[in-house]
Amino acid sequence: MKRTKKERQQLLCDTIEQNPFVTDEQLASQFGVSVQTIRLDRMELSIPELRERIKDVASRNYENEVKSLPLDEVIGEIIDIELDQRAISIFDVRTEHVFQRNGIARGHHLFAQANSLAVAVINDELALTVKSNVVFLKPVKLGDRVVTKALVRGQHNEKNRTYIDVVSTVNNSTVFKGEFEMYRTKGVGEENETSN
Amino acid sequence: MKRTKKERQQLLCDTIEQNPFVTDEQLASQFGVSVQTIRLDRMELSIPELRERIKDVASRNYENEVKSLPLDEVIGEIIDIELDQRAISIFDVRTEHVFQRNGIARGHHLFAQANSLAVAVINDELALTVKSNVVFLKPVKLGDRVVTKALVRGQHNEKNRTYIDVVSTVNNSTVFKGEFEMYRTKGVGEENETSN
Repeated sequence: MKRTKKERQQLLCDTIEQNPFVTDEQLASQFGVSVQTIRLDRMELSIPELRERIKDVASRNYENEVKSLPLDEVIGEIIDIELDQRAISIFDVRTEHVFQRNGIARGHHLFAQANSLAVAVINDELALTVKSNVVFLKPVKLGDRVVTKALVRGQHNEKNRTYIDVVSTVNNSTVFKGEFEMYRTKGVGEENETSN
Repeated sequence: MKRTKKERQQLLCDTIEQNPFVTDEQLASQFGVSVQTIRLDRMELSIPELRERIKDVASRNYENEVKSLPLDEVIGEIIDIELDQRAISIFDVRTEHVFQRNGIARGHHLFAQANSLAVAVINDELALTVKSNVVFLKPVKLGDRVVTKALVRGQHNEKNRTYIDVVSTVNNSTVFKGEFEMYRTKGVGEENETSN
C-alpha cells in the first residue's frame, strides 16, 4: 500500500519527533522511498537535517542542571536530562577510542560514557559508583555515533542508593547495556542542607 | 615474642618475595620495628627499595609477550604476565584520573586498567569483552598506586570464552573487583594458524 505524500509527511514528523537521531537513509528505507524524497519532505516541512538537529539539542545548556559533576567531566555530550529520572548522551567514536588493530571501540570508553551519564543523572553533589554489570552486545566501530540512555529504575533512600539502567545504541541497534548501583549522599526528595 | 634479627630478616625476604609492592612502612608495622630498622635490614640483605623494585620489574620487556594488543594500549603498566594464566599491572592515579571536586578516581579508569589487563592476559590476536561485573569497594584517591591482578578462572573452548577475575588493591587493601567474560578467536591449546 503506497502512502500519500501527506500521510508520509505526517509519519515523517512523528518519527523524527520520537527519535531525533534517525538519519535520512533510515527514513528512506523505512518508508520505501528515495533519500532525495526524504530530503524534499524535510525541506517542505522545515525540519533541519540530522546534523543540525543534533547541534540544536546539544547547544542547550545543561551546565546549571547537572549537579553531581562539572559538565566537562561527562564523557560524551548530554543532549537531554531530567534529574533522578533519565538522561541521554551522544558519543562519537574517534581514532583515540578504538583498538589500532581492528578499529573496534575499546570497552572502557563505552563504560565511561554510560558510567558518567549514570553519575550525571543523579540530583546530588556527590554520586559514586558502587556496582556495575555491563554487557557488550555488538562491536562499535570507528566513526559510529553512540546514543546512550540512562533510566533511573529505583531508589533506596535508607541505603543512599540509586539504581540506573543504561542502554547504548548505534543506528538504533543496541550495542551495550549496563546496570549501575550508585551511592549518593541523600535520598530523592530529601532536602539539601543549605549553608547560610 | 620478639624475633631475632636473623628470623626477622628471613621473614622480610619471604614477605617481599611474595609481595614485591610492600612498602617499608608496611613492613615496619607488620614486624613491630621502626622503618629505619627495615631499611638497614634491606641494605644488609641487598634488597633494593620499593621504587627500585618496581622499576626493575617494569623495565622488563613484555612487548613480545602480549598478543592481543600493543603494549601501549594497556592502561597501566604490566609488571608480570603469564599468558592465559595471570597478569599484574600498576596504575598511578594522577590529576587527570580524578573528579575535580573530591580527588576521587573516576570509575572508568579503574575499569580501564582491569579491562585492558583482562584483554592482555589472553593468548590470542583478538580478545573482546563480552560481559563484566564490577564492584567499587573503596574510593581510590589522587596519588594512589593501584596494583591490579588478573587471574584466568576458566575457559570454554566451544564458546571461545575465557573467564577472568580481576582484583585491584591500594596499599594491600582491595578497592575494586571485577569478573570479565572475554571472547577470543581460538580456545586454549588450539594451534595458531600460521601464514607461510
